Amino acid sequence: MIIIGEQINATRKSIAAALEARDEAVIVKAAQSQAAAGAHYLDVNGGDPREGQEARNMEWLIDLVQANTDLPVAVDSANPQAVELGLSKAKKKPILNSVSLEKDRLDGLLPVVSKFDCMVVALLMSDGGTPCGIDDRMANSEQLIKHLTAAGKKIDEIIVDPCFLPVSADAASGRAVIDAIAAIRARWPEIHIGGGCSNISFGLPKRRYVNFALLSQAIYHGMDTGLIDPCVPDIMATILAAEAVAGRDEFCMNYVMGMR
Amino acid sequence: MIIIGEQINATRKSIAAALEARDEAVIVKAAQSQAAAGAHYLDVNGGDPREGQEARNMEWLIDLVQANTDLPVAVDSANPQAVELGLSKAKKKPILNSVSLEKDRLDGLLPVVSKFDCMVVALLMSDGGTPCGIDDRMANSEQLIKHLTAAGKKIDEIIVDPCFLPVSADAASGRAVIDAIAAIRARWPEIHIGGGCSNISFGLPKRRYVNFALLSQAIYHGMDTGLIDPCVPDIMATILAAEAVAGRDEFCMNYVMGMR
Repeated sequence: MIIIGEQINATRKSIAAALEARDEAVIVKAAQSQAAAGAHYLDVNGGDPREGQEARNMEWLIDLVQANTDLPVAVDSANPQAVELGLSKAKKKPILNSVSLEKDRLDGLLPVVSKFDCMVVALLMSDGGTPCGIDDRMANSEQLIKHLTAAGKKIDEIIVDPCFLPVSADAASGRAVIDAIAAIRARWPEIHIGGGCSNISFGLPKRRYVNFALLSQAIYHGMDTGLIDPCVPDIMATILAAEAVAGRDEFCMNYVMGMR
Repeated sequence: MIIIGEQINATRKSIAAALEARDEAVIVKAAQSQAAAGAHYLDVNGGDPREGQEARNMEWLIDLVQANTDLPVAVDSANPQAVELGLSKAKKKPILNSVSLEKDRLDGLLPVVSKFDCMVVALLMSDGGTPCGIDDRMANSEQLIKHLTAAGKKIDEIIVDPCFLPVSADAASGRAVIDAIAAIRARWPEIHIGGGCSNISFGLPKRRYVNFALLSQAIYHGMDTGLIDPCVPDIMATILAAEAVAGRDEFCMNYVMGMR
């Protein structure tokens, strides 16, 4: 499982405050604790509506993260200026998080995708909205992957985010996204699949149980990338256990090592 | 999900001691706490190697459980005398736990199966051993279900226990049993599938994570019966969450009610 640490995101109050105050300690702690907990990439989001500010935030965050950990970053933005600056600062092959089929976003980011040696998250949203079934997710995957391969990406440089929707709103939405994951895995064996999946439990009590059930089932069907908080021990244990049960951990070595 | 409470089992030290001392309070507490926690059946096992003792234990346990809860029992024994006595004492339609393809066990129990109006657990073991793949589990299911329907059982009175084997011994064993569950579910849509699945984590640290991952994945593929301890809140939450994500809980009503 590829673990992308999700903590450094301006939608979190503590990170937004640290960005505003340029408080390095908060960011360094988030970076180092996620690295120690087993993250493979660190997501970096400096979202800010003020003109030019998101790019400045991105630059500051990436310099800080790279000065204090050895991990590659996931440049998390839909703003072409911030994305390009972020990717240009990356010392190790980064992830662009994310492109989608939304026309403005796609038009703005495809030139950047072509320009950099990076992985890219393909979020299955389009101007028509968020896909909620299997067929629409497959159709959007076909289209978006076509754009990305035309822009020079190999299949194993693409991480499809299938869009996890709340089961509280539609009881079929869990099974739909899991079956879509299985279909995407079957269609493109080399691709990566995953993203932030805690939206599945939106509106429900004790959300972690629903998140863990989704993770276990999605991993069984081919999800191999998680945008998660690796500092929550239960999440990492759930992922390692799900991989062991799904037959992706010979002799359970990863599980046993991870549980130490 | 059909929840069979597993606590009242002579392989547990506290239960063995209570059986020996005929200590009613221990058994009543185990029965009532499991009932309060949401069990639908209470498993009752009075295993004892001494001649005639298992049947005497079974009678004492079942009378006690039925005097103190309204739940039906699962008569847990391979001893025909104990099973027959247990089933004859049952006030509500019980479960016979379990028959298998092992010749002595099958020959001893089939006449009892025919005689009583009961559900029956079909454990897929045979004299050839424990099945570890999909094909052997399907072949054993076909044979055993043939015996049971010939003895008068309807398909929806049968609970197939697919035999959960440790992933620590064979990394493929989790995926094998889960895929077998999916195949059994597809072949007999009305049948019940499940059993005690904690054997999956034998030999591993922090076993609950592995048990929960297996439960989530197995429920997704059609497991609908669990021989579990309902007094462990995490287990019930995991089951309810897995059913919600798998699309078996309209409006997440069971999950929300269960989390109160």
